[in-house]
Amino acid sequence: MAEKDWKDRIKSLKGVVLDMCGVLYDSGEGGGVAIEGSVEAVKRIKASDLQLRFCTNETQATREQFVAKLQRMGFDIAVQEVFSPAPAAVAILKERGLRPHLLVHDDVVPEFDSVEKTNPNCVVIGDAADNFSYKNLNDAFQVLIGLEKPALFSLGRGRYYKETDGLKLDVGVYMKALEYACDIEAEVVGKPAKMFFQSVLLDMGIEPQQVLMIGDDLVNDVGGAQACGMLGLQVRTGKYRPSDERHPTVKANGYVDNLAEAVDIILKYRAMEYM
Amino acid sequence: MAEKDWKDRIKSLKGVVLDMCGVLYDSGEGGGVAIEGSVEAVKRIKASDLQLRFCTNETQATREQFVAKLQRMGFDIAVQEVFSPAPAAVAILKERGLRPHLLVHDDVVPEFDSVEKTNPNCVVIGDAADNFSYKNLNDAFQVLIGLEKPALFSLGRGRYYKETDGLKLDVGVYMKALEYACDIEAEVVGKPAKMFFQSVLLDMGIEPQQVLMIGDDLVNDVGGAQACGMLGLQVRTGKYRPSDERHPTVKANGYVDNLAEAVDIILKYRAMEYM
Repeated sequence: MAEKDWKDRIKSLKGVVLDMCGVLYDSGEGGGVAIEGSVEAVKRIKASDLQLRFCTNETQATREQFVAKLQRMGFDIAVQEVFSPAPAAVAILKERGLRPHLLVHDDVVPEFDSVEKTNPNCVVIGDAADNFSYKNLNDAFQVLIGLEKPALFSLGRGRYYKETDGLKLDVGVYMKALEYACDIEAEVVGKPAKMFFQSVLLDMGIEPQQVLMIGDDLVNDVGGAQACGMLGLQVRTGKYRPSDERHPTVKANGYVDNLAEAVDIILKYRAMEYM
Repeated sequence: MAEKDWKDRIKSLKGVVLDMCGVLYDSGEGGGVAIEGSVEAVKRIKASDLQLRFCTNETQATREQFVAKLQRMGFDIAVQEVFSPAPAAVAILKERGLRPHLLVHDDVVPEFDSVEKTNPNCVVIGDAADNFSYKNLNDAFQVLIGLEKPALFSLGRGRYYKETDGLKLDVGVYMKALEYACDIEAEVVGKPAKMFFQSVLLDMGIEPQQVLMIGDDLVNDVGGAQACGMLGLQVRTGKYRPSDERHPTVKANGYVDNLAEAVDIILKYRAMEYM
């Protein structure tokens, strides 16, 4: 039923948005490796009449560093095609005249170079990894509790992720810690925040129902995109688990084994249009 | 109305339980200083026919170290009169045959000397302060997420406390972080947990309605004691704030300026009984 749905709507598509880790590549030693067929799949979308954007919650590097890594894996990808939480946060901070205290990974700090940071009136928290010391979390807390209206921005809300040496706590865990300490609710920047998907749509200049999001994360990729009116397709790579297909509240518009299969189906259905 | 109530019930009292920090002393440089009149007030209760116990959520030292500090301030106090979360946790661990992974302050580790800790099947978290590094929190998380039924014990649920150099994050904040990471709920040991107050009552061998709890923390001292059927009196010292007297859900049975005033009233009313 749901699968029929996404195939029926392929002909009216004007754009595709791809999650990156778990769709394009698997992370691991030395930065990770491309998932079989995904380099070629990206090339095929680019050669079609579809618009293409990439959408990631990665906050342990600048977009430049991150895109360079993907290019080394063989992907045809450019910085301006990639949407990540840090630049989205910078846009929000500038729009609202906010000066952040940063609790983020050292490698993502340069993304905030253009933002005034003296006398901070908000806190931005990212996946800071080893920078999540007691002292650093306490410093962020003291900034928040000293504000009349404490404003906390979180670059994602993930619980944990997998690295080669085991599971690692993600930014959402420390977001919850500061929320409890100050009795506040953070504003999440990145997937599944509506505003984040909308900024991608705005850049493409097309309507949500004309766009297909492809991701390995059922809740943050598929569910987040659907909440904005986009189609959501889940790949059975990356963090996909079979139980995702029986999820109580989020149901993808379709499932494919990997990105290569998704692109095969999309291009086949679009070719049929012109027969 | 509420105040009349506690004075009316003084004659039937058989025991008094005192919170420590903010009631007996104020913390600060070099361990802190006794609150005026509190050393004498403790002496006067001990000279009466009332039983006396002390009840603290302190987890940055062993009871022995903590009691020695109070004795240096002039208090007549013995280790066996003091109830703190770590020994309460040890009792629970032994009763249930649990082997803890500890994420606590170095100085409280000796409290757990008698507990088997190899091959852990639960996590105990206390106010670990600088021990709350990313690595240590991640280690505790990995123990929990590897268990079939993750069991987390938290020595208190405080958000933050005040030290001479500013506000510091308390154990509750890290409890919330691990709760979110593993999608579980922690079992709180210490105030305001019912079982903690009940262990004090059991030791005194008297009924809750015969016991008066005196504390500076409206929710954890007063509210916690009331939930067990005890009377709860708030002192206007320590972390007391005037807004406490307008709290939406917790109402003390009475308010006094300090411990000395409470003891004055208690002993006066009890003397009247025999007139």
